[in-house]
Amino acid sequence: MISIKMKEQVQNSSIIRAMFEEGKRLAEIHGAENVYDFSLGNPSVEPPADVKEAILEIINSESSNSVHGYMNNSGFEDVRAAIAKSINDKFGTAFEQKNILMTVGAAGGMNVILKTLLNPGDEVITFAPFFGEYRSYVKNYEGELVIISPNTRDFQPNLEEFEGKITQKTKAVIINSPNNPTGVVYSEKTIIKLADILRSKQKEFGTDIYLFSDEPYRELAYDNVEVPYVTKYYENTIIGYSYSKSLSLPGERIGYLVIPDQAADFENIQMAANIANRILGYVNAPSLFQRVVAKCLNAKVDVETYNKNRELFYNGLLSYGYQCIKPEGAFYLFVKTPIENDVEFCNLAKKKNILIVPGTAFGCPGYVRIAYCVAYRTIEKALPGFKALIEELR
Amino acid sequence: MISIKMKEQVQNSSIIRAMFEEGKRLAEIHGAENVYDFSLGNPSVEPPADVKEAILEIINSESSNSVHGYMNNSGFEDVRAAIAKSINDKFGTAFEQKNILMTVGAAGGMNVILKTLLNPGDEVITFAPFFGEYRSYVKNYEGELVIISPNTRDFQPNLEEFEGKITQKTKAVIINSPNNPTGVVYSEKTIIKLADILRSKQKEFGTDIYLFSDEPYRELAYDNVEVPYVTKYYENTIIGYSYSKSLSLPGERIGYLVIPDQAADFENIQMAANIANRILGYVNAPSLFQRVVAKCLNAKVDVETYNKNRELFYNGLLSYGYQCIKPEGAFYLFVKTPIENDVEFCNLAKKKNILIVPGTAFGCPGYVRIAYCVAYRTIEKALPGFKALIEELR
Repeated sequence: MISIKMKEQVQNSSIIRAMFEEGKRLAEIHGAENVYDFSLGNPSVEPPADVKEAILEIINSESSNSVHGYMNNSGFEDVRAAIAKSINDKFGTAFEQKNILMTVGAAGGMNVILKTLLNPGDEVITFAPFFGEYRSYVKNYEGELVIISPNTRDFQPNLEEFEGKITQKTKAVIINSPNNPTGVVYSEKTIIKLADILRSKQKEFGTDIYLFSDEPYRELAYDNVEVPYVTKYYENTIIGYSYSKSLSLPGERIGYLVIPDQAADFENIQMAANIANRILGYVNAPSLFQRVVAKCLNAKVDVETYNKNRELFYNGLLSYGYQCIKPEGAFYLFVKTPIENDVEFCNLAKKKNILIVPGTAFGCPGYVRIAYCVAYRTIEKALPGFKALIEELR
Repeated sequence: MISIKMKEQVQNSSIIRAMFEEGKRLAEIHGAENVYDFSLGNPSVEPPADVKEAILEIINSESSNSVHGYMNNSGFEDVRAAIAKSINDKFGTAFEQKNILMTVGAAGGMNVILKTLLNPGDEVITFAPFFGEYRSYVKNYEGELVIISPNTRDFQPNLEEFEGKITQKTKAVIINSPNNPTGVVYSEKTIIKLADILRSKQKEFGTDIYLFSDEPYRELAYDNVEVPYVTKYYENTIIGYSYSKSLSLPGERIGYLVIPDQAADFENIQMAANIANRILGYVNAPSLFQRVVAKCLNAKVDVETYNKNRELFYNGLLSYGYQCIKPEGAFYLFVKTPIENDVEFCNLAKKKNILIVPGTAFGCPGYVRIAYCVAYRTIEKALPGFKALIEELR
């Protein structure tokens, strides 16, 4: 009885579902503390204390009808103005309230923009490895996801292939930096070159190509690496942000879009995005957490905790002979599998009670994603398993 | 640059937008307190005290990573179990955790179900007058909304016309009781007859037809009227509920779906709805408010306040000569316009600083919707304007 499209989705998701069920089964047999689950990007670091303080302050001092009530579908005006100012202070931009649209997380924001822009058959380009959900989001609006093959040397995007794959039908390009699953931060050089290519292709085809920068991991960056603010490099940029990782609030579904004045057809996009937010059934971003994030603009989770996990895990795996780019951001390691078949490697890992995700799910076979947003102790306990795994495969 | 579909949406919404802008303009000229805005269903009654208590208790006693973290896309298991139990206690049903899917409000829930069920060209039937957003929700999934003309005698659904309009392609039927915009509660007799028709048509066509009962106003019922629990009358029923009105939390986007075991293809629907919740970008219903509503299962807003508004407004309008069914639920009056053209009547009302919505927006010209979820004093101050309006038109 379910729709044909959803039948496909159910089939595709059955592998991940099977892994999830297997994880639960293992936990029942061996105890949850002896199953090492590195499969999910669910933050382990607590939200900063500011979040709780903000909730208490709002609940105790503001009118509950206004805290929990409807507002403009784009969000509370004062919240949007505060976020615009905060971005301007950090990046030297000049955004105003009208440039910010509060969304149900980054996933909600991306759906709003794709709904706003895509006609059936429009092409959306992204770079492997990429967050697998992009496939569904683009398909929701009858778009075609065009995947650029991975550059496994340093996981910066493969811009030569990219240039060749832009067509008259290219409506948008999605980038994600710091990247899920590699942890790589796209360098300023990359962004400049990518912007040059887009500008020249826009001219060649007489089209507008929007660059959607998906930035839920922006605040999780290590070693003082700079994450370029993309609107400064390319006019037709739209930013999608989320507080899921920066404030450890993934369940609350709170984020925003930045739609700059400079983006082609700005006024229509802004108006249509507001309506898309409504008609897709989000209506508006959750109201209490809109007010909460406006009070936490300078707060962020303790990134050093993730950094310690990163060092422990990365150095451990390297010492056993694994190959992996050192991630500069996010909380994932993207590790080359000692055997070619990444799905098989994940199955072998499972026998050691280690749960990881095959690179195939991110459009990059021969690799696995390991989420290190877990307790330090879990990594310590799992490392011997990783050592045994590679030794057995030699 | 925006998509063709969104261009249409922007055009369609420009009338409501114009009214909103006009309201702001009037408020600037005459002062907000002298503009009588009955256009929005934004609850005026405060959330019950239980909501604040629940928030404080959760924030002060539970682990913040678990309160604000990811969970199963269908929602926290304990919350879903508590809601199932609460429904069973009230209505004698036998739901379990697996039958409940937490959603981003009722709008999110309806989009999840339509995404789950509809193939392009599938027909969805609803009864005028109806909440205008259904048009967009059905269009989101390439469905065709089939509208049954209003029965202006008592605003119970026109079941004769309904029976004739069910076809091989009818995938779902949407009902909404207590109804927005009429405030009418569909009687048990209506539900039984509707279920009989559906069962006989299912047999005739060899299809399954799902009945989606959109119930955000369930708790707002007056005069001890009974609102039938629809799953008890028809197997292929799916319920969409929201706490927006029952707890005055419309900004928080929290609600749920009930998908009974008895619904045809239950397991696939349940699995697909879980995935649809994720891929439509909701991911999950906001986590803190999942936990809050689980602690407020027996709480509801002070319905008596709305009831007083209802009596004042209804009796006032009737005494001036307006014609209107006395609403048994929700917080709207659906009033016959003294002139045929409802849009023109709204424009005349605006000249008296009264903002109301033409019935045309609900598929029922010749009527206007008046939302009485406002302060009592606002109604008192606006009534003379309504009196003058009808007198001038005589």
